[in-house]
Amino acid sequence: MQPDLLDPVHSAHALQQLRTLSPLVHCMTNDVVQTFTANVLLSLGASPAMVIDREEAQQFSAIADALLINVGTLTRERAEAMHAAIESANRAQTPWTLDPVAVGALAFRSGFCQQLLSLRPAAIRGNASEILALAGMPGGGRGVDTTDSALAALPAAQQLAQQTGAVVAVTGEIDYITDGVQTLSISGGDPLMTRVVGTGCALSAVVAACCALPGERRLNIASACRIMKQAGSRAVKQSAGPGSFVPAFLDALAANGKGE
Amino acid sequence: MQPDLLDPVHSAHALQQLRTLSPLVHCMTNDVVQTFTANVLLSLGASPAMVIDREEAQQFSAIADALLINVGTLTRERAEAMHAAIESANRAQTPWTLDPVAVGALAFRSGFCQQLLSLRPAAIRGNASEILALAGMPGGGRGVDTTDSALAALPAAQQLAQQTGAVVAVTGEIDYITDGVQTLSISGGDPLMTRVVGTGCALSAVVAACCALPGERRLNIASACRIMKQAGSRAVKQSAGPGSFVPAFLDALAANGKGE
Amino acid sequence: MQPDLLDPVHSAHALQQLRTLSPLVHCMTNDVVQTFTANVLLSLGASPAMVIDREEAQQFSAIADALLINVGTLTRERAEAMHAAIESANRAQTPWTLDPVAVGALAFRSGFCQQLLSLRPAAIRGNASEILALAGMPGGGRGVDTTDSALAALPAAQQLAQQTGAVVAVTGEIDYITDGVQTLSISGGDPLMTRVVGTGCALSAVVAACCALPGERRLNIASACRIMKQAGSRAVKQSAGPGSFVPAFLDALAANGKGE
Repeated sequence: MQPDLLDPVHSAHALQQLRTLSPLVHCMTNDVVQTFTANVLLSLGASPAMVIDREEAQQFSAIADALLINVGTLTRERAEAMHAAIESANRAQTPWTLDPVAVGALAFRSGFCQQLLSLRPAAIRGNASEILALAGMPGGGRGVDTTDSALAALPAAQQLAQQTGAVVAVTGEIDYITDGVQTLSISGGDPLMTRVVGTGCALSAVVAACCALPGERRLNIASACRIMKQAGSRAVKQSAGPGSFVPAFLDALAANGKGE
Repeated sequence: MQPDLLDPVHSAHALQQLRTLSPLVHCMTNDVVQTFTANVLLSLGASPAMVIDREEAQQFSAIADALLINVGTLTRERAEAMHAAIESANRAQTPWTLDPVAVGALAFRSGFCQQLLSLRPAAIRGNASEILALAGMPGGGRGVDTTDSALAALPAAQQLAQQTGAVVAVTGEIDYITDGVQTLSISGGDPLMTRVVGTGCALSAVVAACCALPGERRLNIASACRIMKQAGSRAVKQSAGPGSFVPAFLDALAANGKGE
Repeated sequence: MQPDLLDPVHSAHALQQLRTLSPLVHCMTNDVVQTFTANVLLSLGASPAMVIDREEAQQFSAIADALLINVGTLTRERAEAMHAAIESANRAQTPWTLDPVAVGALAFRSGFCQQLLSLRPAAIRGNASEILALAGMPGGGRGVDTTDSALAALPAAQQLAQQTGAVVAVTGEIDYITDGVQTLSISGGDPLMTRVVGTGCALSAVVAACCALPGERRLNIASACRIMKQAGSRAVKQSAGPGSFVPAFLDALAANGKGE
């Protein structure tokens, strides 16, 4: 079955809504990408907030419009705080998004993410290796790199979506977004984006933000993927390498839609 | 009573002194803004150092010229380390500055910051919501955003200054710096600064650095606010958006005064 | 005895090998430099991964091609995780590199780093104050700054190399790389690099990556120093200050060798 393409009207609308509604995104993410994640959300008009203490995270995820759980630099203490935040988010009907960084390669986070699958994530965003590992299929990778193309992990993504009720985005050269029945594909972006730390993690934060928007979740999440790929493509043209890509990318996110 | 304006001679002098004296600023700050805070201080010629272990923080705050306490990503463990560092700073007469990020919205940090008020901060820097919340006045906000103008929080700032002995800076479109009796106002800057994570937190670090300078503290802290607003205004002219603002802002801080 | 110069062929070859072999570098580093460290490694074609939980770090350092231990924001918990990771690295013959940030100034990290010296580091990279302190010689410094020239610490570096079996790089205006018998010197770079947080810490990460390359370790580590100094020199020419230096530096690392 051929995946559908996303009507650009949807991503333009999502972009507009991010700016208008400015969803408050509670980010429990890894140490490496905190600043970039916050700046990506701010560039899009969303409101990031990083709250990590167990009790505070529990309180905050009920107030926030969306919650992001990224296990990149997981510790026992953070796992407990994340668990508490998710339970509180669920009680408050705050949608939460899972980024299963490097799942499969490492035992503790793999077990933790497996546990989380039963807690009704709104969205899961990972690369092919991570989605394969999370679905219990052979694949794996080394750290955050992925050696599988996103298409190879699409069956795993569909299975995960059916199992958890989440919309699953498996991203790479082409992104696939599936609710287990219908699938959308998004192309664009640039390989230079893999030479900059945090582009995937920041995408998960934008996915989380888009889960707070009204309208169909699958289209909103596909819009998040398209917004990031488009800004990436534009930024590459302004860049002399991975260093100048970062400011150009944030500028493109802030300008995005204005030039379309 | 109309706030006074700051004589530009003062901020030019403070800038010169930051470069000459290069105060060692012990930053206990949040996960999101560590790099940017360090780079802001380095650009101005100050020496940042982030030391967080309880015992080491206690030892270091006695050596440092200034201490910054920012509760953005507070945990129980960090709260204990901060408390120890403050007590040690007070014994060594190291001035310490409080940035009460998102106080009011979250219970744990609100209680913690209330406790700290009795420990003789040299300076407190926050946005309107935070200063209102810290003073026990109605206001509040969502996370680090503020919905109140700084002027609305000036009475709260004045009360806090009188209660604690600190110079209080309530910052926003216009910054107000008060010792509870006399108040200075600083205008300038640009709304783009609110689309970049850490500009407020980095300002608090510069306030901390300026607390280490000789001369009148109120004028030194107002100078910190003016230095940051001026660099912001200049950087915006060199920027195509929030991404390119960051390098331009650091360049402007490093060049600041040279072009005046 | 006059230090030798590095044949540029070696650093060009090391650069090529970093891109071809893309060593997986397990970075246990400080809070302030995580993003910059990851981006420096990515720009060079290496694969950074930050894994910090005790059990996960132990598992991961055995899979990784190299391990970096940087004590900049050490805590008790991190010290335990680092110790476990080093022991696992040694069992798996993964080379590990020590960056003894601010050793000498602070008791806890000084004791910890002293302990680590018996665990067979492949490389140690520090500034003059840190290398002097680690070797138990008078020197010291304040935080991460150094007040001694690298040459003054060369005897300390040679002693440390003989004591531990590591190649020791003491870096500053000129870098010295010694195995205790033979010493190489690398000049270049620019003082602007000291106004940007993390250039030294990122160098240690590149040293760690180069420890994973085939060939003579002393030459590979000297190559790491030369690669960073050369990119720094080139980036300064593209920069208007410390802010624009960062993207220019990462671009130069990614382009490095192509323009030679």
